Amino acid sequence: MAEHVEAGRMKVFALNSNRPLAEKIAKAAGVELGKATIKHFSDGEIQISIDESIRGDELFLIQSVSDPVNTNLMELLIMVDAARRASADKINVVIPYYGYSRADRKARSREPITAKLIASLMQMDGVSRVIALDLHAAQLQGFFDIPVDHLQSDRLLTSYFENSAMADEDIVVVAPDHAGVSRARRLAELLSAPIAIIDNRDDAENAAHPEAVIGDVKGKHAILVDDIIDTAVRITISADALKKAGAADVYACATHAVLSGDATQRINDSVLKKVVITDSIQLPEDKQSDKFVVMSVGDLFGKAIDLIYHEEPVDSLFHPAPKRQEQ
Amino acid sequence: MAEHVEAGRMKVFALNSNRPLAEKIAKAAGVELGKATIKHFSDGEIQISIDESIRGDELFLIQSVSDPVNTNLMELLIMVDAARRASADKINVVIPYYGYSRADRKARSREPITAKLIASLMQMDGVSRVIALDLHAAQLQGFFDIPVDHLQSDRLLTSYFENSAMADEDIVVVAPDHAGVSRARRLAELLSAPIAIIDNRDDAENAAHPEAVIGDVKGKHAILVDDIIDTAVRITISADALKKAGAADVYACATHAVLSGDATQRINDSVLKKVVITDSIQLPEDKQSDKFVVMSVGDLFGKAIDLIYHEEPVDSLFHPAPKRQEQ
Amino acid sequence: MAEHVEAGRMKVFALNSNRPLAEKIAKAAGVELGKATIKHFSDGEIQISIDESIRGDELFLIQSVSDPVNTNLMELLIMVDAARRASADKINVVIPYYGYSRADRKARSREPITAKLIASLMQMDGVSRVIALDLHAAQLQGFFDIPVDHLQSDRLLTSYFENSAMADEDIVVVAPDHAGVSRARRLAELLSAPIAIIDNRDDAENAAHPEAVIGDVKGKHAILVDDIIDTAVRITISADALKKAGAADVYACATHAVLSGDATQRINDSVLKKVVITDSIQLPEDKQSDKFVVMSVGDLFGKAIDLIYHEEPVDSLFHPAPKRQEQ
Amino acid sequence: MAEHVEAGRMKVFALNSNRPLAEKIAKAAGVELGKATIKHFSDGEIQISIDESIRGDELFLIQSVSDPVNTNLMELLIMVDAARRASADKINVVIPYYGYSRADRKARSREPITAKLIASLMQMDGVSRVIALDLHAAQLQGFFDIPVDHLQSDRLLTSYFENSAMADEDIVVVAPDHAGVSRARRLAELLSAPIAIIDNRDDAENAAHPEAVIGDVKGKHAILVDDIIDTAVRITISADALKKAGAADVYACATHAVLSGDATQRINDSVLKKVVITDSIQLPEDKQSDKFVVMSVGDLFGKAIDLIYHEEPVDSLFHPAPKRQEQ
Amino acid sequence: MAEHVEAGRMKVFALNSNRPLAEKIAKAAGVELGKATIKHFSDGEIQISIDESIRGDELFLIQSVSDPVNTNLMELLIMVDAARRASADKINVVIPYYGYSRADRKARSREPITAKLIASLMQMDGVSRVIALDLHAAQLQGFFDIPVDHLQSDRLLTSYFENSAMADEDIVVVAPDHAGVSRARRLAELLSAPIAIIDNRDDAENAAHPEAVIGDVKGKHAILVDDIIDTAVRITISADALKKAGAADVYACATHAVLSGDATQRINDSVLKKVVITDSIQLPEDKQSDKFVVMSVGDLFGKAIDLIYHEEPVDSLFHPAPKRQEQ
Amino acid sequence: MAEHVEAGRMKVFALNSNRPLAEKIAKAAGVELGKATIKHFSDGEIQISIDESIRGDELFLIQSVSDPVNTNLMELLIMVDAARRASADKINVVIPYYGYSRADRKARSREPITAKLIASLMQMDGVSRVIALDLHAAQLQGFFDIPVDHLQSDRLLTSYFENSAMADEDIVVVAPDHAGVSRARRLAELLSAPIAIIDNRDDAENAAHPEAVIGDVKGKHAILVDDIIDTAVRITISADALKKAGAADVYACATHAVLSGDATQRINDSVLKKVVITDSIQLPEDKQSDKFVVMSVGDLFGKAIDLIYHEEPVDSLFHPAPKRQEQ
Repeated sequence: MAEHVEAGRMKVFALNSNRPLAEKIAKAAGVELGKATIKHFSDGEIQISIDESIRGDELFLIQSVSDPVNTNLMELLIMVDAARRASADKINVVIPYYGYSRADRKARSREPITAKLIASLMQMDGVSRVIALDLHAAQLQGFFDIPVDHLQSDRLLTSYFENSAMADEDIVVVAPDHAGVSRARRLAELLSAPIAIIDNRDDAENAAHPEAVIGDVKGKHAILVDDIIDTAVRITISADALKKAGAADVYACATHAVLSGDATQRINDSVLKKVVITDSIQLPEDKQSDKFVVMSVGDLFGKAIDLIYHEEPVDSLFHPAPKRQEQ
Repeated sequence: MAEHVEAGRMKVFALNSNRPLAEKIAKAAGVELGKATIKHFSDGEIQISIDESIRGDELFLIQSVSDPVNTNLMELLIMVDAARRASADKINVVIPYYGYSRADRKARSREPITAKLIASLMQMDGVSRVIALDLHAAQLQGFFDIPVDHLQSDRLLTSYFENSAMADEDIVVVAPDHAGVSRARRLAELLSAPIAIIDNRDDAENAAHPEAVIGDVKGKHAILVDDIIDTAVRITISADALKKAGAADVYACATHAVLSGDATQRINDSVLKKVVITDSIQLPEDKQSDKFVVMSVGDLFGKAIDLIYHEEPVDSLFHPAPKRQEQ
Repeated sequence: MAEHVEAGRMKVFALNSNRPLAEKIAKAAGVELGKATIKHFSDGEIQISIDESIRGDELFLIQSVSDPVNTNLMELLIMVDAARRASADKINVVIPYYGYSRADRKARSREPITAKLIASLMQMDGVSRVIALDLHAAQLQGFFDIPVDHLQSDRLLTSYFENSAMADEDIVVVAPDHAGVSRARRLAELLSAPIAIIDNRDDAENAAHPEAVIGDVKGKHAILVDDIIDTAVRITISADALKKAGAADVYACATHAVLSGDATQRINDSVLKKVVITDSIQLPEDKQSDKFVVMSVGDLFGKAIDLIYHEEPVDSLFHPAPKRQEQ
Repeated sequence: MAEHVEAGRMKVFALNSNRPLAEKIAKAAGVELGKATIKHFSDGEIQISIDESIRGDELFLIQSVSDPVNTNLMELLIMVDAARRASADKINVVIPYYGYSRADRKARSREPITAKLIASLMQMDGVSRVIALDLHAAQLQGFFDIPVDHLQSDRLLTSYFENSAMADEDIVVVAPDHAGVSRARRLAELLSAPIAIIDNRDDAENAAHPEAVIGDVKGKHAILVDDIIDTAVRITISADALKKAGAADVYACATHAVLSGDATQRINDSVLKKVVITDSIQLPEDKQSDKFVVMSVGDLFGKAIDLIYHEEPVDSLFHPAPKRQEQ
Repeated sequence: MAEHVEAGRMKVFALNSNRPLAEKIAKAAGVELGKATIKHFSDGEIQISIDESIRGDELFLIQSVSDPVNTNLMELLIMVDAARRASADKINVVIPYYGYSRADRKARSREPITAKLIASLMQMDGVSRVIALDLHAAQLQGFFDIPVDHLQSDRLLTSYFENSAMADEDIVVVAPDHAGVSRARRLAELLSAPIAIIDNRDDAENAAHPEAVIGDVKGKHAILVDDIIDTAVRITISADALKKAGAADVYACATHAVLSGDATQRINDSVLKKVVITDSIQLPEDKQSDKFVVMSVGDLFGKAIDLIYHEEPVDSLFHPAPKRQEQ
Repeated sequence: MAEHVEAGRMKVFALNSNRPLAEKIAKAAGVELGKATIKHFSDGEIQISIDESIRGDELFLIQSVSDPVNTNLMELLIMVDAARRASADKINVVIPYYGYSRADRKARSREPITAKLIASLMQMDGVSRVIALDLHAAQLQGFFDIPVDHLQSDRLLTSYFENSAMADEDIVVVAPDHAGVSRARRLAELLSAPIAIIDNRDDAENAAHPEAVIGDVKGKHAILVDDIIDTAVRITISADALKKAGAADVYACATHAVLSGDATQRINDSVLKKVVITDSIQLPEDKQSDKFVVMSVGDLFGKAIDLIYHEEPVDSLFHPAPKRQEQ
């Protein structure tokens, strides 16, 4: 009579995009990073081999789909293929930054919906669950049929302001565009502050005018809230407008610091005092700045992995959304 | 030697939820409605039979997924099953109102994403294309892998105001909550008007206070813009707040007039002067009101069907979204 | 080193269609019903939230797809979506009554096969196993690719007659139509009785004539056997024919008491002495009658769930079908 | 500017199981059989090559899944694979006899449902439509999600009796077991005759006793009706019982003449006068008998193919089933 | 509170193609063969029932897809269907010989790729993992999306030569055709021998000429290496050529002894001294020969099953392929 | 009554990897390249929009999956997503170079099969057909279930030698490793030449020794044949060995000129006289060399597209493989 099999072990693997964060996550989850070799050949092809047995194990693969977006995505897909063929029991992917998340709808005719394409690619490949952070739109959860654990950095980001001198003074939380008002409202609630909006139309110049500011910001500490800072054009123009509209000073916070092109320079040159970000994307040396305050999401993800592996609820890590309202 | 087969004919079928609109659509598309029998047995089961040959034809099935939502949805799914088994070549579903569209994300743990579930049900059932109108979130397009032609009623709704006396006076377009600011901005652009927002927090009472209004509405014609009017609680409370904040008068417009429960009564009792809606949902006698101005989307859908059947682009029917902005 | 995960717990949830039965099932399985909120909005939409952690657990969802059929089906599908997204390990659905089961083939051109549609919907949604009772046709098992545990109430229904006074007298088991002869034969075997058939042609009036009875019923206790009593037209007309053909008295038994429209009245007005049914469908107050003898299938399902959860065979709950015969 | 493509031509191919029927079908459809080489290697493997271009064409592949069942099935599956990879536009499979159709449900625990397995294999392989004849259970249509055109030989089989001397005398149509009563009723209607049933229990000996006959057969021409005659045990034993019960003489008719083992001998030795069958299965020399009357289904299938290719309704070829009755 | 479920037991089942090997495998894995009934009806249909509970268990089904190829394949597919419906937890298929493996690409237009078809059939049917031996092309692993454990008999086959007298003399390993050079190189490495090739062109006669031999074989013990010996034409002709080219004597080894038609006779009549094969295919009495040396792969598979069931790596059973080389 | 729809037009689109070839292909197919915008944002994301209507059209998308492999692959997948959502009728992808094709099997445990992953990604995305050239292994066709038209450049490559001075002298075709012998044999046949092989073992140094050459090359023009030249290590080392073994001079030919790293320099420094390649991959300025003779596959692909669009057989473009031989 054959004896019984042990339940699968937790195995955490890092791909290449954000190894420092992966190490923090593994540490917070109480494990070592698993052994795998990821080789990039001179012709651009990626070769992966997993260097320890994962048969029957529960895997957590950590990869931010950040620049180089396509290469990082393929690393992840190839790793999942290897894991599935090597008989992993469950393949969880931890995606601190979900690239292409802004391509979440057809803005005009004959465009792709790349955020959905990526979801389909991962699902087809055999991913069991996605653990993501501050998705550009909450609807992205619905691009998957598998479970998505959607973590939020709201409390992490606001903790900086709550612990700062301005905590007892007049604060206003500002959405830099129309789509971000719900996010601004959510953080404003944590800070017990009112909100304002930058009425950000097509022509960017317009946005820098004080008339673009809807809501009262005069004499207040304005905190611009966004999910992604990419070129930093919007956030710096918005900061100008706020300043012209009488804000005492302007801060910004955002989960994902993409900082493409001259973004860091643009922020250094701007009226922004501090920009609070997370380490969901690894910041290369030349994109760092004294203006950045980096809060690590390592503990958040580590804790989530631990709860998920032990099949305990992860609610405690969420900032609940409001219930369906009367419409 | 066998001769060749003719390309499939266009066949438009109406299910039960909104037959008057279906007739307008068919007329605009230049065809008669196809013959089908939809029987509801006394035990609640639906029986459908298609009463003319559809072999090799291109079908357009018209059904609003409005109250009774589940029954209307099942009518549609059963009809698609019948059409697929009867060898239809293509099965397009025309969904003027997409029920459950607000269930488009997990707001809290252990909730479903019913809007995605419905998309999956339709796709699994063999639907070839979806033709929808003003989806609650544009991301719903990504819930499908099949083509979605997403029509918009923006110009139809604003045409009422453009043709009214107030066209030359001060107008402000108002979003009744945080999530709807992009929609408000889109209509404001068509009306060359500024926007304002109702800072609609959890406690509804709060929303009726003039402080809830962000932006300048004093002395202006305020037009509240929403996609759905369901219980009408939000829109009437928002109207109150606008009035208290000094708006000259308050109008509303919305694509989908769900009007559940006492909604019509609530609107009749409110400060709202007129509420511009479409016939995406069939309004029963007892929900009608003199305050409603109903614009028909029959032509819009009929024209779309005609273009789609003839494989011509439908761009002309869209109000293009702004391009990806610098973030 | 991370410790191991416990195997999933058994969780039994009731949806809305038949809560009294669900409670009996849960009791028989030795557990409390799980906590979930099922809300019906005034616009007809259903909102479900599961109010306890089910991560990694094995779920049993109990729902009869009875009137209102479409709403009860959608409740089930939505609950499955919620459970899948909430990381349930296995999702078993317990369907005491499988609505639309009579729509199991295309009777004529361009009809749907709704019983298969429903099977596909459930399977696509992520259901792991179906536990059903006395399906209208055994072939419905083949509409699924997942395991179907098909329970039978034969012994439960015949036990009433075996324990009654007539047990020692002449009994004849009667099939009320051509398709039900196998079922009649199965129960006749348990009662060691011969069978007869109502030769039920298109025109219903015909069926009430004594000539419609094939087989010898004179002076016997006739027991009409069906799987479903819907409008009760067939069973009452058949009873008339049996009476006219000389049956001493007429009983009926059936698993599923749909009793739509005036069915109860029709039975009350008929020559039927007693109608033995199960609680697979919840009988509302106004459909009850002294003629009904209700046998509960609670224990049968509870026992099945217990065996399934413990991965033990459930054969003991079946009444085996005959082996393939020489044809 | 590229010119347009012609619609696909009709191409009819025969596999090995029933070439004479395939030739009749092709002739009736007005085409030559397509060229293909089907080679069986000495190691038992099948190699197929299609020897004319089928790119963009509509194919009709004719194969009875008769003995050798597994080899004939694989021939069909392999041919479909070849056709799909060779860019056929549509792949219709014409299955005069659907082997394994009796394995359509789990009769006992841990059995397969092979009829569904075969449906899934064909569907997965890329079959566009199935054209079948007198399926063992109508529910088999629901094993497919693709269109199934289900032809019936009722009129073909009864035409023999209608044109015979007995047409004006007393006829009774007899079902040889419980499951076949609906089929018997259907043919009885065409012949305006009453029905009777053989109460065919587990022990076959029993069935030969006159008590097994339910219904009045005395002095009548009894016509046993079945879909399949396999070993012929059931039909010959039933004939005995009918004779003993006083039938004037006994005929039989069945669509599919499987005639495995000693079936032909058994029929030759029996009281049966004539057995009307079709050529859905090719009868080898040594299974033929003077008692057989073979009606060809070549025209029926040929006509169906012609209508399907020209996308015209095929209703005219069906014997409609009764509508859903009051249950 | 319900107690926990035990992990699934290991269950090994044999189908009909190679029961002696299955028994060796089971013994090596330390279990008894499971109980199942596989019945072949006189009409050619297969009926399977599994005669012990497998609910929640991990199954290993052993079947060589050898002659009769199609029947053996269907036995396997039907067994998988039965196992899936009977709630097996995992269904591993052990395929010592993978029939149709040479049909792994389209050699010419409008041919099937039957090796892929079979992979798709198995995967669609619910197979969890494939355990195979010396696949004709390693790329066959990629025909599956599920894990494939690809065992190799290299060491088993070479062990015969290493333990023979010739071990210390001059050996040359010969590929009998162009496609098999990599395999020859792999075995040559284990035997520390050089390689040669038979330049096997279209016309078979040519191959028997000594000019067809590329590489030096004079005075050496030549060992022809192939994966499959089917008709034995190639291997015997190659042996002739080697002999004519001066080889001292000629041996052959191959994993899969298909030996169709007159293969054994051909080998008996040839210059081949010994042919080392495995028992991946059961050799019927009339195909045996004194020239065959049969090495059993029972231990190899038994060990693999044991490791897989206990979720331990199986690398130790492989002969690793060379890493990607600079190309 | 609606009139009929025209059949889809042929539309050829180029992505970014090899625009010069795409233009040649379009020209050969007799059309202009379609209009599409492919934008690479500064954060690495790709945005595509198709700038002309493609509704109902048949598309041919041209993309070599060459360096940058992952980005080029994602361009293709995103374009397919856009085309599918924009209602293209058929989406053919033309892949002159199939990156990752060497990752076609698991060489060792826990490796991916990336060539299959890519096939699955494309198929899942909605690709209708693949048109490829000289795939690394013919089995890659079986990684797809959709049609693959596999073109060959054999005749194109050999035409250079046939038209050169050496055509009338002694030629030997050489395979640079074990896996490439079949390819060498195929070209040798076209050139009526014998073959030789480089016995290329693990340690590369070894390969440069004359002993590594199997077969007679003395005084002959040796033509090394490969499918891919990547780093050029193998081909240059092999050339050395041939030279040392007495070859008069050494040429090479290969379809795909990957030429990664220092490959061009390595070739320039080698004994190779000429290297005949195709333009399946676009050669950047700094990788060009006087030693390269580039044959364009533009006509081959253009002709194939034309035949496919007009649904005519493409056999004429193939160099047929030998039939299955006696093994």
